[in-house]
Amino acid sequence: MTEMSLDQLDCPVPQVDDQRVLLGHGSGGRLTAELVRRLFLPAFENDVLAALEDSAVLNLNGLPTSQASRLAFTTDSFVVKPLFFPGGDIGRLAVFGTVNDLAVGGAEPLFLSAAFIIEEGLRMESLTRIVESMRVACQQAGVELVAGDTKVVDRGKGDGVFITTSGIGLVPKGRSLSVHNARPGDRVLVSGTLGDHGIAIMSVREGLEFETLLESDAAPLNGLVQAMLEACPTIRFLRDPTRGGLSSALNELAAGSQVGVKLEESAIPVRQEVRAACELLGLDPLYVANEGKLIAVVPGEVAESLLDAMRTHPLGRQAAIIGRIVDEHPGMVTLKSALGGQRVVSMLSAEQLPRIC
Amino acid sequence: MTEMSLDQLDCPVPQVDDQRVLLGHGSGGRLTAELVRRLFLPAFENDVLAALEDSAVLNLNGLPTSQASRLAFTTDSFVVKPLFFPGGDIGRLAVFGTVNDLAVGGAEPLFLSAAFIIEEGLRMESLTRIVESMRVACQQAGVELVAGDTKVVDRGKGDGVFITTSGIGLVPKGRSLSVHNARPGDRVLVSGTLGDHGIAIMSVREGLEFETLLESDAAPLNGLVQAMLEACPTIRFLRDPTRGGLSSALNELAAGSQVGVKLEESAIPVRQEVRAACELLGLDPLYVANEGKLIAVVPGEVAESLLDAMRTHPLGRQAAIIGRIVDEHPGMVTLKSALGGQRVVSMLSAEQLPRIC
Repeated sequence: MTEMSLDQLDCPVPQVDDQRVLLGHGSGGRLTAELVRRLFLPAFENDVLAALEDSAVLNLNGLPTSQASRLAFTTDSFVVKPLFFPGGDIGRLAVFGTVNDLAVGGAEPLFLSAAFIIEEGLRMESLTRIVESMRVACQQAGVELVAGDTKVVDRGKGDGVFITTSGIGLVPKGRSLSVHNARPGDRVLVSGTLGDHGIAIMSVREGLEFETLLESDAAPLNGLVQAMLEACPTIRFLRDPTRGGLSSALNELAAGSQVGVKLEESAIPVRQEVRAACELLGLDPLYVANEGKLIAVVPGEVAESLLDAMRTHPLGRQAAIIGRIVDEHPGMVTLKSALGGQRVVSMLSAEQLPRIC
Repeated sequence: MTEMSLDQLDCPVPQVDDQRVLLGHGSGGRLTAELVRRLFLPAFENDVLAALEDSAVLNLNGLPTSQASRLAFTTDSFVVKPLFFPGGDIGRLAVFGTVNDLAVGGAEPLFLSAAFIIEEGLRMESLTRIVESMRVACQQAGVELVAGDTKVVDRGKGDGVFITTSGIGLVPKGRSLSVHNARPGDRVLVSGTLGDHGIAIMSVREGLEFETLLESDAAPLNGLVQAMLEACPTIRFLRDPTRGGLSSALNELAAGSQVGVKLEESAIPVRQEVRAACELLGLDPLYVANEGKLIAVVPGEVAESLLDAMRTHPLGRQAAIIGRIVDEHPGMVTLKSALGGQRVVSMLSAEQLPRIC
């Protein structure tokens, strides 16, 4: 094993014009994190927002204190391009994205809202397909869409349609999954192959063709999460690695828990087509978005039994233990390569794949 | 009084290309209603959505059945142009708009989420001003922003920034305000002058100048609503007449309760500058958006005491009784003009003022 090169930490950050918003501010990586930390957190100072979880967990004072559950609340805008892609469309993504944010927060997703910002001239047939796809997705995830809004902007001031979904769920009493919970000795698991969604989108945009059709992995994770929590109630942290991929999610965990994360490259499941496309496009699968995968952190002693439970669920068949939590290099994620070298997996700074979700 | 001309009901509807989304589908008028009825309601069939209130009222099965309150949930996208205007900006509008939707549903607004879709190249200074304005607005309304999201779209595929806010509130036990509640004999009240917001926006866009500065009425209505419900717990219906103005809100009420609404033009408060601008621009103040006004429907016998209560609140000083609910012409809104004539106030069909909120 070679020494980890610390100056990789000083990896070049693209020159940033501080005066304007860049595509990278929407990457889910370092620029997004900076924007949140510098601008949004100071403005809306409260503990719930500052926790930086994927969904807010709320105590409602108006409800009896004997209540069994707390409320989870989350929001996400979807601006994916193109609107339709192999394995899904913007509507399916908008439903599952919000369902998954609730699920990985430990909540049972219940209700969604959807707000549409439509560009004048969108084909009514496209909108109808998207809405139908959302209907099916809601059924699949077992949630009800109960509130909505429609705005139309002039031609050339939008791009087809943007959809913002918000979601409400219930977190059972005593359940606490958090980015602050990881402890040295814990194991890191993923539920399946990484990078499928991002590469499916890119392959359409770039006109790539593969022998097999590469599809987005867009899927509702609440069923898998429920099975996992039943099998292993001591799960510490769950996250769906969307924008910014595995790397962003684990860097947030490392920072939030002040621990190190050590990954084994050879253990990380990546489809052959995804690997090939990444090489072609100069991308790293650890940074590519997923829309139907999750990361779990659990105490080492239950990692194997959790893995077994995940593999019995259709969405977890290719689950794997990919690394562990260590007390070395707190706040940092490292990867032991197949060749034995070790490198830092830093957070994505700029935009790798704009408008991927 | 002249006879009401029934063929005014057959007022010309602009030729609609059924194949594409038009600006009018975002007007809050007839085309929006059609889109909701034809596309969204059938897809997401459930009673909460079908109620077509400004916020969804939810019973959470996971919470004890003895609970005192139900949950209100609402969402709205804001695409106003320009981003900054006299009396406000898109951020202020996004906070108050969602607070007001909860308030007129009888809920105490508690938590907001905000999702930003930013066009690459937006000046960071503009974003900072908007976020600061949202911070102040949240404080003013007494709500906490607990969840957020940021997406960036490429230059020319957005327009500065669009903001989608969703909100959660609690509806006290036994409170039920609804578009289905109006009864003949009820009175219709407004909390103040109509059209200020829409005309403030239009005056900036069109470069109009007035002797006094015309400002948006953007304001959080939850305090006023609370004072009104304390003074008059039998209020049947509240609504903030935003897109589509007074006319859309009252047409929805007439249809929802299957009653007629009779308005007295001379009783409807409209600022002199707004009236003048409307004449200049060929607009009708009854169709212009408001962002800090509400309509209330109450039993006739308590209308005067409600009016007194409204007038003691800073946001209700110019409140007025503007009409009554009748059993004639169910589903229809009529206006007795200052000259004694009577006309049908139909729902706006096409887009009068695009991107007003």
